[in-house]
Amino acid sequence: MPFIQFDGPQMSKEKKAELVAKLTQTAHEVLGIPEQAFSIIIRENSMDNIGAGGKLLSETHK
Amino acid sequence: MPFIQFDGPQMSKEKKAELVAKLTQTAHEVLGIPEQAFSIIIRENSMDNIGAGGKLLSETHK
Amino acid sequence: MPFIQFDGPQMSKEKKAELVAKLTQTAHEVLGIPEQAFSIIIRENSMDNIGAGGKLLSETHK
Amino acid sequence: MPFIQFDGPQMSKEKKAELVAKLTQTAHEVLGIPEQAFSIIIRENSMDNIGAGGKLLSETHK
Amino acid sequence: MPFIQFDGPQMSKEKKAELVAKLTQTAHEVLGIPEQAFSIIIRENSMDNIGAGGKLLSETHK
Amino acid sequence: MPFIQFDGPQMSKEKKAELVAKLTQTAHEVLGIPEQAFSIIIRENSMDNIGAGGKLLSETHK
Repeated sequence: MPFIQFDGPQMSKEKKAELVAKLTQTAHEVLGIPEQAFSIIIRENSMDNIGAGGKLLSETHK
Repeated sequence: MPFIQFDGPQMSKEKKAELVAKLTQTAHEVLGIPEQAFSIIIRENSMDNIGAGGKLLSETHK
Repeated sequence: MPFIQFDGPQMSKEKKAELVAKLTQTAHEVLGIPEQAFSIIIRENSMDNIGAGGKLLSETHK
Repeated sequence: MPFIQFDGPQMSKEKKAELVAKLTQTAHEVLGIPEQAFSIIIRENSMDNIGAGGKLLSETHK
Repeated sequence: MPFIQFDGPQMSKEKKAELVAKLTQTAHEVLGIPEQAFSIIIRENSMDNIGAGGKLLSETHK
Repeated sequence: MPFIQFDGPQMSKEKKAELVAKLTQTAHEVLGIPEQAFSIIIRENSMDNIGAGGKLLSETHK
């Protein structure tokens, strides 16, 4: 712990590596918890599977 | 917020759109929170990845 | 399954009962899955623990 | 309820069945809750999507 | 990783310790992943916050 | 979307505000998604409710 679940769009492996590195560093700096203690799961979602305000993102972002 | 995570089976894009629209409307009516404030993530799961009562759904629903 | 996780604000027991009944009925009608198969967890959150657009809701909703 | 979300690596259907059976039995024995009440979702993750200590598992497990 | 989220009822610290120890050991035996790699979060829920089949557990378990 | 769930220890409101601001900014910079699109839920956990390597953190961090 801490444990971060990140639900976002599809992304490249390079972006995942950068996201994991920087989110971990940022949270470490704010909370003073060692970087080694952090785990992150990135979940990649289709715009068909996300709703905002009652509409699918795949419809509103056309 | 509110934020809804919906774990269900595979479904068509039309069903996803209907589900997002109607769950948002329903929760809006119950809680009085504007529809714009709602986010929903639909997670589609294989029956091989769900257990109920100690058995996979893919076994019990054969 | 399906399984719904609902993150929202504090609410009364009456609202929880109504939310569980109506979300279940709504999803049942959309997907044709029996109501008995649905589980819902309601998580009640302080406005101090929710961020939107980089700000706590307890700050933006003052 | 109880409801278990298990984030792990890719695994065979046989391992999923064994995991669901044994986690359910174990939790039943500890808590005294009937096995029928347990639901489990297994989420299979790529090593590219998991970070530990600021690095992707796909990098540290090379 | 693996990461287990366990949503259950209120329980004593002794039960939490036993649950964490035995779920970790069980999953280790099934998957062959070292026990050190497992994290578990136990979330304790009021029966007012759980719905099954459209009804709160606090109503159906009276 | 994106949606971030952050499971960590108890923390002050000031730390929560800083965490939400900086995680949002960091993820915005990595992914190029507008800050307004991000939601974060902070879940505060007792060390009695977190297990690592089969032991409660409240035991290993004594």
